[in-house]
Amino acid sequence: MKKAVVLLSGGIDSATTLYWAKQKNYACFCLIFDYGQRHKKEIKSAILIAKKAKSPYEIIKIRLPWKGSSLLDKRLEVPQRYNVINQKRKNLIPSTYVPARNIIFLSFALSFAEAIGAKAIFIGAHTHDYSDYPDCRIGFFKAFQEIIKEGTAAGINKKSIKIYTPIINKNKAEIIKLAKKLGVPLELTWSCYHGKRYPCGKCDSCYFRAKGFQELGIKDPLLVISS
Amino acid sequence: MKKAVVLLSGGIDSATTLYWAKQKNYACFCLIFDYGQRHKKEIKSAILIAKKAKSPYEIIKIRLPWKGSSLLDKRLEVPQRYNVINQKRKNLIPSTYVPARNIIFLSFALSFAEAIGAKAIFIGAHTHDYSDYPDCRIGFFKAFQEIIKEGTAAGINKKSIKIYTPIINKNKAEIIKLAKKLGVPLELTWSCYHGKRYPCGKCDSCYFRAKGFQELGIKDPLLVISS
Repeated sequence: MKKAVVLLSGGIDSATTLYWAKQKNYACFCLIFDYGQRHKKEIKSAILIAKKAKSPYEIIKIRLPWKGSSLLDKRLEVPQRYNVINQKRKNLIPSTYVPARNIIFLSFALSFAEAIGAKAIFIGAHTHDYSDYPDCRIGFFKAFQEIIKEGTAAGINKKSIKIYTPIINKNKAEIIKLAKKLGVPLELTWSCYHGKRYPCGKCDSCYFRAKGFQELGIKDPLLVISS
Repeated sequence: MKKAVVLLSGGIDSATTLYWAKQKNYACFCLIFDYGQRHKKEIKSAILIAKKAKSPYEIIKIRLPWKGSSLLDKRLEVPQRYNVINQKRKNLIPSTYVPARNIIFLSFALSFAEAIGAKAIFIGAHTHDYSDYPDCRIGFFKAFQEIIKEGTAAGINKKSIKIYTPIINKNKAEIIKLAKKLGVPLELTWSCYHGKRYPCGKCDSCYFRAKGFQELGIKDPLLVISS
């Protein structure tokens, strides 16, 4: 079996990406980040999902002392409906953007992949709803592919490591549909920016999740369990 | 004053790069990594150098559980004279190569730079002696520059952050000569792969340091102090 490193955050997107990679017969090694996000709930979700998928995982703990994001700095407010209100405006980046986050995450994934001889890295980024996150766009992943070619032992020795973004062009409803087909344990996923007992229902992440389920006309199994 | 993030390891190369940036009137913010290297001595050196240069610093602690390098894995031996013996052979990468290390380091530097509004990142990489480290080559830094353009808020908003590699084409003797000119506290720098009381004198890093001083016909102030 070919090995792959899969970035796993605990949300629907990365869980679906993991199950997609598993269906493609990759032996998946999950990478979970404890990066000082507002709550640990998504980390717990990620662990539960990895266990459910019977995929080994590593947890990487990092801290960005400079913060620079409302996801890391509790003094800043997480905006509500930011992307809903501003989604037609170009290059307006919400305060939830964490400087260089996906670049950091992919760097670790790349190190992991090189060390274990994996040929693939999977990341559940997509641009549909959050079109203003620069590190979720196709151009960014293409540029990162060049980094692998130029800056790693694997690249030099023509042992390519490829980045896969299977859901990059899908919207939330399409991702949930795919997740259902692949048997993703959606009840274990967590999307809310806040780590309370129940999802807040107000943040962008809750909004797009609810909208996705609504469009498909099905109930969110997380809310069924919570209620 | 323009702000810059400077990667500082405790060796001659990064210390010289810091002093070079200072001379160019950058307000330098140093970034030091505790990444599970074999010893903490180089971290202590980096802190002393930052303090001597009156530059603020952040220490980032990371662990790569997959290791994949003799610099991280104490069960592996650090090769002696590897680069000396093999320097004419192409694409032969020593066991001291840490998978994706400079990619990880630059990612954090980029996050730091974005968060504080720095326009420059300085890294003391050079290809002269260690020609087989893929992440020390000009092509790699060019590729990383593209990442900044494509994958960050700064890039999107045309607020460019530039990577500078002022010593990339210099050999050790040339770097030491520049260091002397810039007033780098060479007695505080540490190069040896081992963290004992005195440099081992046998590893590649000791070899190239000694060779550099020898070529200039001057004594290494670290050894003067040690002896």
